[in-house]
Amino acid sequence: MNKKRIAVYPGSFDPVTNGHIDVIRRAARLFDELVVAVGRNTTKESVFTIEERVCQMERACKDISDVKVTEFSGLLTDAVRSMGAVAVVRGLRAVSDFEWEFQMALMNRELAPECETIFLMPSPEYSYISSTMIREIGRFDGEISSFVPEFIAAELVKRLKES
Amino acid sequence: MNKKRIAVYPGSFDPVTNGHIDVIRRAARLFDELVVAVGRNTTKESVFTIEERVCQMERACKDISDVKVTEFSGLLTDAVRSMGAVAVVRGLRAVSDFEWEFQMALMNRELAPECETIFLMPSPEYSYISSTMIREIGRFDGEISSFVPEFIAAELVKRLKES
Amino acid sequence: MNKKRIAVYPGSFDPVTNGHIDVIRRAARLFDELVVAVGRNTTKESVFTIEERVCQMERACKDISDVKVTEFSGLLTDAVRSMGAVAVVRGLRAVSDFEWEFQMALMNRELAPECETIFLMPSPEYSYISSTMIREIGRFDGEISSFVPEFIAAELVKRLKES
Amino acid sequence: MNKKRIAVYPGSFDPVTNGHIDVIRRAARLFDELVVAVGRNTTKESVFTIEERVCQMERACKDISDVKVTEFSGLLTDAVRSMGAVAVVRGLRAVSDFEWEFQMALMNRELAPECETIFLMPSPEYSYISSTMIREIGRFDGEISSFVPEFIAAELVKRLKES
Amino acid sequence: MNKKRIAVYPGSFDPVTNGHIDVIRRAARLFDELVVAVGRNTTKESVFTIEERVCQMERACKDISDVKVTEFSGLLTDAVRSMGAVAVVRGLRAVSDFEWEFQMALMNRELAPECETIFLMPSPEYSYISSTMIREIGRFDGEISSFVPEFIAAELVKRLKES
Amino acid sequence: MNKKRIAVYPGSFDPVTNGHIDVIRRAARLFDELVVAVGRNTTKESVFTIEERVCQMERACKDISDVKVTEFSGLLTDAVRSMGAVAVVRGLRAVSDFEWEFQMALMNRELAPECETIFLMPSPEYSYISSTMIREIGRFDGEISSFVPEFIAAELVKRLKES
Repeated sequence: MNKKRIAVYPGSFDPVTNGHIDVIRRAARLFDELVVAVGRNTTKESVFTIEERVCQMERACKDISDVKVTEFSGLLTDAVRSMGAVAVVRGLRAVSDFEWEFQMALMNRELAPECETIFLMPSPEYSYISSTMIREIGRFDGEISSFVPEFIAAELVKRLKES
Repeated sequence: MNKKRIAVYPGSFDPVTNGHIDVIRRAARLFDELVVAVGRNTTKESVFTIEERVCQMERACKDISDVKVTEFSGLLTDAVRSMGAVAVVRGLRAVSDFEWEFQMALMNRELAPECETIFLMPSPEYSYISSTMIREIGRFDGEISSFVPEFIAAELVKRLKES
Repeated sequence: MNKKRIAVYPGSFDPVTNGHIDVIRRAARLFDELVVAVGRNTTKESVFTIEERVCQMERACKDISDVKVTEFSGLLTDAVRSMGAVAVVRGLRAVSDFEWEFQMALMNRELAPECETIFLMPSPEYSYISSTMIREIGRFDGEISSFVPEFIAAELVKRLKES
Repeated sequence: MNKKRIAVYPGSFDPVTNGHIDVIRRAARLFDELVVAVGRNTTKESVFTIEERVCQMERACKDISDVKVTEFSGLLTDAVRSMGAVAVVRGLRAVSDFEWEFQMALMNRELAPECETIFLMPSPEYSYISSTMIREIGRFDGEISSFVPEFIAAELVKRLKES
Repeated sequence: MNKKRIAVYPGSFDPVTNGHIDVIRRAARLFDELVVAVGRNTTKESVFTIEERVCQMERACKDISDVKVTEFSGLLTDAVRSMGAVAVVRGLRAVSDFEWEFQMALMNRELAPECETIFLMPSPEYSYISSTMIREIGRFDGEISSFVPEFIAAELVKRLKES
Repeated sequence: MNKKRIAVYPGSFDPVTNGHIDVIRRAARLFDELVVAVGRNTTKESVFTIEERVCQMERACKDISDVKVTEFSGLLTDAVRSMGAVAVVRGLRAVSDFEWEFQMALMNRELAPECETIFLMPSPEYSYISSTMIREIGRFDGEISSFVPEFIAAELVKRLKES
């Protein structure tokens, strides 16, 4: 029998969007376990803390089988290796995504050749949603409830009002 | 008879370029009124103040019929809705523009479905001009007079010397 | 008062798809009249004759206001000029569309400078639908009813069986 | 325990290249079984017959575990469904690939929602190799032995001389 | 002293356009000799014969220094090698050009590593001109005199009338 | 006899990568002299000082003929003009590179029409290497020795530990 195949879906998820959840749902069916790895994001300030983002992701994924949420810091390839993952999963929305993702994936392959990066497409209705845009719309009191889970919309509005 | 059709051309115009004016001239012929909406640009510091940019745009457009200049802040879709506009106009210069513009346009469609984003091409001779590059060339005393209206070139050189 | 503004939406529409109809619906709101111009397609053989395609388009658009269907042959710019149109409308689905469309639009601008090409985005759920793919799926008895109007699906299946 | 996960790698493989084999090797590690599905290619004439291409693929993959070679005709989604596959594997070499692949993948998702298309990157040293180019170089007696398995190079040269 | 540096600019030039001539003018200044290599084009039928195209190119380039016109058939890399060229010159107009050109250039590097492919940009006003589009416009009696040298416009109209 | 042809390869080289060196090696064969121009980089802070980067580049290029290393500040076109260069050399790795490079090259052509920008492709095995990624990997103690010259790897690790 084959050993258990683990895949990793990394990101900063600040906040998690319906597009992310769509990718997670699709990827989870392809592997024995999908680890959603929430990154610490050292260079830019995040709206939610790493602990909050892990919590939110756990809540957002609680009805999807074979998904585990964890945090990571440092190099993705180090995290991937310590989990024994066979694949890194990335959602591809657009050509500009593709270029950057390609470059990262080849760099990561050099650093951890035993792990393959695979690309999935989110549903086209989510193809234009990004965390950056959601934060910006939220800042101007725009309606974000069709882009993120309901509880995230509430928490984001609350947080942006505080700051 | 149809009601008056208004379109909005938003941007930060810091400074307005010959490429922007080319798009305005083309768009103005397609609608009953074209509102050039100069954005406040809260996240990055601008070379010219919002009042200066509105003034400059008015001067740059004074010979083009059916154009009105205004400022806006907050969400573009809120501004568009309050003007009763049927279209947002964007100039498309390159593939990388296209990707970002696409994402924004789909986001805006979700927020204001009654307003369509339309894309126009500037003349190819303006396809490589961007406000960012003009500011950079100006900073190093480079010759910018073929990229912007003459009075803008003078004001930009003066402003960059002051700072 | 401004004179009536006419726009043209050209294509071979072999067959018309839900994506085409989405673009027509969006464009029709922006102009006083939208002329859907069905091309004769001299170089490649079409599944439906020009007369059939005009008929199908008329049926597909019968509930959309201010739309007229016509056929054209020869240069698009000649047709556009004879209609006195101010704009050519094109749907942009993807980057590869964009490149080709850009080239055509600039060529057409040289030939008919008084007419502007404008680009609209179809709804993302239609972004992957093309007439070519629909014909291919139809050929293998695949299910096409979610990509085209119902009556088109029936006519296409019938026609492909005959040939 | 999870049921066996099968993935399909479809193509015309006329001829199979080192780039294809690289993708097969990478994909085979991610699933319990990888089915290489050689397409009949009804529209364009192939250099090798479907039987020859299946044979060649079997020989090219004989040292890679968990790979099965088969032929298919008609719609890919019908073939995929009859195999009970969870994924279709595609190699992504370039942006233009990406666009077309995206469109096909979304179309296939509509036809067979239970099967996910995943994209892998071949090694960059194979990123520029295509069957079309190899056939063309072969036709002019160019050196193709660094692009395809050795036995393919010999068979292709022989075949192109006959025709 | 360095030996004479020769570069090759290959194409089918059916017909030569103002964009081609712009590239030739730019490339000729960079090398000791620029060889314009007119390809035989075995796969698709050309409007002008190889002899006519060589003639036309010679006439179009007669005022540009250090340019030689020749024909070639077979593999470009064989032709390049027999001329002892250090570079192949290609004009890059758009992203889709880029992808295909990249693939060809890497293939050619494998076949003739001693020769570098370099890319130049035509002037933006020529960026949308292609021989294919010019032939199509000519076929419908469209005005092509701003896209090609005057004598080419005349010869093309005459030839298309004959056929 | 032709006068000496000089080309310039500008960049910030913070740090120089194997990809840069590959481009230098290829470009040096095409011109009588290649000047590698290390930019001062006024807007963003660099890991290595301008003096260090010039030094490192000289060491990295010491076995390549006809290469000279210098620093520059201000506008590239001013530097190019003072050297009497006929060409600016740029490496093209990806489509997103291409867009930005195109825009810069056209701007520079306007400012210094006598100097042509030419694009070369690095070897595909270097196509995914960027200074930014190398700095990031170095920061997390990742293995960078396959991306840069050995002495650079050592200096970068040392420098990043100090800061």
